[in-house]
Amino acid sequence: MDPNSRIEASLNLAFTRAQAPSGPPMLGAAMRHAVFPGGARVRPRLCLAVAYACGDDDPASADAAGTAIELLHCASLVHDDLPCFDDAATRRGRPSVHAAYGEPLAVLAGDALIVLAFQMLAWGTVARPQRLAPLTLTVAQSVGMPNGIVAGQAWESEPNPNLATYQRAKTGSLFAAATIAGAAAAGADPQPWRHLGEALGEAYQVADDLLDAVSNPAETDKPVGRDAALGRPSAVRSYGISGALHLLQTLTQDAADSIPNCQGADTLRQLIAQEARRLVPKSLSHAAA
Amino acid sequence: MDPNSRIEASLNLAFTRAQAPSGPPMLGAAMRHAVFPGGARVRPRLCLAVAYACGDDDPASADAAGTAIELLHCASLVHDDLPCFDDAATRRGRPSVHAAYGEPLAVLAGDALIVLAFQMLAWGTVARPQRLAPLTLTVAQSVGMPNGIVAGQAWESEPNPNLATYQRAKTGSLFAAATIAGAAAAGADPQPWRHLGEALGEAYQVADDLLDAVSNPAETDKPVGRDAALGRPSAVRSYGISGALHLLQTLTQDAADSIPNCQGADTLRQLIAQEARRLVPKSLSHAAA
Repeated sequence: MDPNSRIEASLNLAFTRAQAPSGPPMLGAAMRHAVFPGGARVRPRLCLAVAYACGDDDPASADAAGTAIELLHCASLVHDDLPCFDDAATRRGRPSVHAAYGEPLAVLAGDALIVLAFQMLAWGTVARPQRLAPLTLTVAQSVGMPNGIVAGQAWESEPNPNLATYQRAKTGSLFAAATIAGAAAAGADPQPWRHLGEALGEAYQVADDLLDAVSNPAETDKPVGRDAALGRPSAVRSYGISGALHLLQTLTQDAADSIPNCQGADTLRQLIAQEARRLVPKSLSHAAA
Repeated sequence: MDPNSRIEASLNLAFTRAQAPSGPPMLGAAMRHAVFPGGARVRPRLCLAVAYACGDDDPASADAAGTAIELLHCASLVHDDLPCFDDAATRRGRPSVHAAYGEPLAVLAGDALIVLAFQMLAWGTVARPQRLAPLTLTVAQSVGMPNGIVAGQAWESEPNPNLATYQRAKTGSLFAAATIAGAAAAGADPQPWRHLGEALGEAYQVADDLLDAVSNPAETDKPVGRDAALGRPSAVRSYGISGALHLLQTLTQDAADSIPNCQGADTLRQLIAQEARRLVPKSLSHAAA
């Protein structure tokens, strides 16, 4: 099965298990709305690509790791869109979860997706139970305190957060988890893969800052100009547009250069080159060429 | 160490691990505010009492299970208090988390406490890694979809929920997890312990409904009369006050009778008798005598 099919099949399996007829139907629908149809599924694709590069000796473990990371990413989007944060009415061109189902079910959908992520890890490692603890700790570290995505979001409530610390937590941590968990799910040493995830995570955050600063609303399905309006830390705010664009190129090159020599190295480098092109906002692509 | 000291020590250990200096300080403070000082710590005490009854061969596993369940209980209170649910300004006689730290940090504190609960399980089972998967699945099932506390809360957004299904999910599930996880953490068969947790969980929900219906605000630190005001399902609404009181007594007796014959049976029966007295609202204690 190709990676995209594996990811969708595994996400569907998670929902099959979570949506027993005995559960409250609207919460189930709100959770589905948060996950399907998905975005680029970049984090689980990266996780599976690293697992493949490391031999992928237990695909169920790799699928579980990638699925858990994607569920946590979707949970963070649901909560980030809430009125008390971004107050975003739309996401991926559709109503956000709270716009479609109300704020109570949006809070609960995020919570339930976090729980489902950890269930997936436990279900997926049945054949390799010794992998559950390292996968749980890797994934949890990338979400919780002190340096995960929840901590990253919380830096927005602090006075004068450090830009690098903020971005590493808010975006980098889940990318680092994708590469580390991909290796750990295949029984490999995760350390050589950490830098790839961290550099790609930083690149995504810089790309997101650029998109927020330069897009017109027709080019993206997210609200634009929010960073400046909310006084949030941003690479564009710190380095200007051309500085941020240069940083993005340096980071994706750095990510590609960090890939260890292995069977899947070429596939991974192609994935990164493709993402590097996709990440540059269209209105800046002449400047990046 | 006595059970109460074990619980507080283990909760403190969780925070020592979560609150590295690199994390956002206000999120850390909001999480602490949600957990310390605690309420009655009934769920972790029940968990440790069952682990003791089953031999408690690995106290670190039992502590982790009890702590995870208490962290999830605290997380659910933080989210239930949010303006979009109960809009509670106080909790345990102090400002609720969102009243003290604002709504964004309250959402994030709940999220981070859920994640920390699963980390605790992975850290605590290092000596018995084969216990991590069953503990993770037991605890996750009691929180997530389709029958955990998050599902229970979501039934409030559905038209005409079934009272028993709603209460079993909203309160019963975490009590059932306390007894099941207590046994599993001690390497015992959890099935004989399920009924104890379920019956006690139902009893707590009925007691909560009674407290909401009959208390004056001076007798409790929770807002009162919310169930009727919000049209929520409630045992008092379904059976009246004397019917609900009778149900509470039947359930605690049923719980005590279900305890398997074992070394800690007397301690457990004492715990339940003590809780049964504590659960009856003071203004009704003459009716229950």
